[in-house]
Amino acid sequence: MTAHLIHELEDLKRRIFSLVAMVEDNLSLAVKAVQERDESLALRAIENDAPIDHAEVAVEEECLKLLALHQPVAIDLRFIVAVLKLNNDLERIGDLAVNIAERAVFLHALPLAPFPFDFDTMAGKAARMLKHSIDALVDSDVPAAVEVCEADDEVDAINRDMYEQVKTAIREQPEHLDALIHLLSVSRHLERVADHATNIAEDVIYLVNGRIVRHAPDIACKHEDMKEDR
Amino acid sequence: MTAHLIHELEDLKRRIFSLVAMVEDNLSLAVKAVQERDESLALRAIENDAPIDHAEVAVEEECLKLLALHQPVAIDLRFIVAVLKLNNDLERIGDLAVNIAERAVFLHALPLAPFPFDFDTMAGKAARMLKHSIDALVDSDVPAAVEVCEADDEVDAINRDMYEQVKTAIREQPEHLDALIHLLSVSRHLERVADHATNIAEDVIYLVNGRIVRHAPDIACKHEDMKEDR
Repeated sequence: MTAHLIHELEDLKRRIFSLVAMVEDNLSLAVKAVQERDESLALRAIENDAPIDHAEVAVEEECLKLLALHQPVAIDLRFIVAVLKLNNDLERIGDLAVNIAERAVFLHALPLAPFPFDFDTMAGKAARMLKHSIDALVDSDVPAAVEVCEADDEVDAINRDMYEQVKTAIREQPEHLDALIHLLSVSRHLERVADHATNIAEDVIYLVNGRIVRHAPDIACKHEDMKEDR
Repeated sequence: MTAHLIHELEDLKRRIFSLVAMVEDNLSLAVKAVQERDESLALRAIENDAPIDHAEVAVEEECLKLLALHQPVAIDLRFIVAVLKLNNDLERIGDLAVNIAERAVFLHALPLAPFPFDFDTMAGKAARMLKHSIDALVDSDVPAAVEVCEADDEVDAINRDMYEQVKTAIREQPEHLDALIHLLSVSRHLERVADHATNIAEDVIYLVNGRIVRHAPDIACKHEDMKEDR
């Protein structure tokens, strides 16, 4: 590997960290907007998506440039392909933050209902999974990646529980149907953030082991956990 | 480009066509299972996912091999990166077909409710978008790709309409809440199939024009249409 490629790959990692930080902050802002029913926070989260999109485009262009100019092989090639894929996941997580913020805008316009839903815990878990999946990539840390896959089960369980809570609330307070359907969507969006983090973790395992695990039934990243949403 | 690379790229295109056909057939089967509340069809659709996953892994390995062995540049490099990304989209569409089939299993176990929901039209539109996006890729056909992006608006509109219909049905027949929530998910899953087809179409435009359009506000593939789901 040339010194030039080493330098460029370090730069690529820095770009990814910066993009992840932007995505995490915006997700947290969007969830706060839902929890506090704060329209101005929600609108800020929606506006924040443009710079995230630009950063994501820049990462993709950088990957294409590295492939064309340096024609990397082996682990470097796999790393760049993993970055191309996780870049897509980060973009989708960014979009999910916007979707959540849009729900906050809708909720703001609806009558206040008692909301016993704890999105902070769910969002916190999903954000940690995302952070750990990126750390696992940069450190080529397979055990950390496997932990991310395992954590996905917890988020899936919270989502299922949330579905039951919402259905109960609809039965008890049908007058809040609109708000409750929006909250169901927020839960589903957060569950999908965790799915994307899991996708990234799977690619880390692939990167290090050279083995595609997302359809291999015999290891921690089980296919059942990878389904997009429920 | 060497004769060998030309041959390998043709082979890659054939693999993609074959994978798309499998994904389309399974999506259609899953929707039929929902419409006819047929559990055995649903279980077949769930089983069909394994060969789809294997085909998808084979495509990814093939792309890695082509990048490593032929170190392609310019349009060939962009094509292979586009295939890597659409491969991901196809896998997700495959997962969505499974999610839809799972809903059919749940629905089968619930009391029969009057379902005025026309999923066939929505599924047909989404499947056509998928087919056209792949054709656009193989033919490097930008106008066809733009048409796919435009068709996404129609599917989004059907999904929004479906939400309203379901909310009305919940109000009128609260005893069918469980089934109706499942049907809401089916609609959302189909809307996301269309989103994935749109992603593929965007990548075609990128491939041909060398321009990432998914965040460019001035052309038909508007960012607003690209959001994952609502």
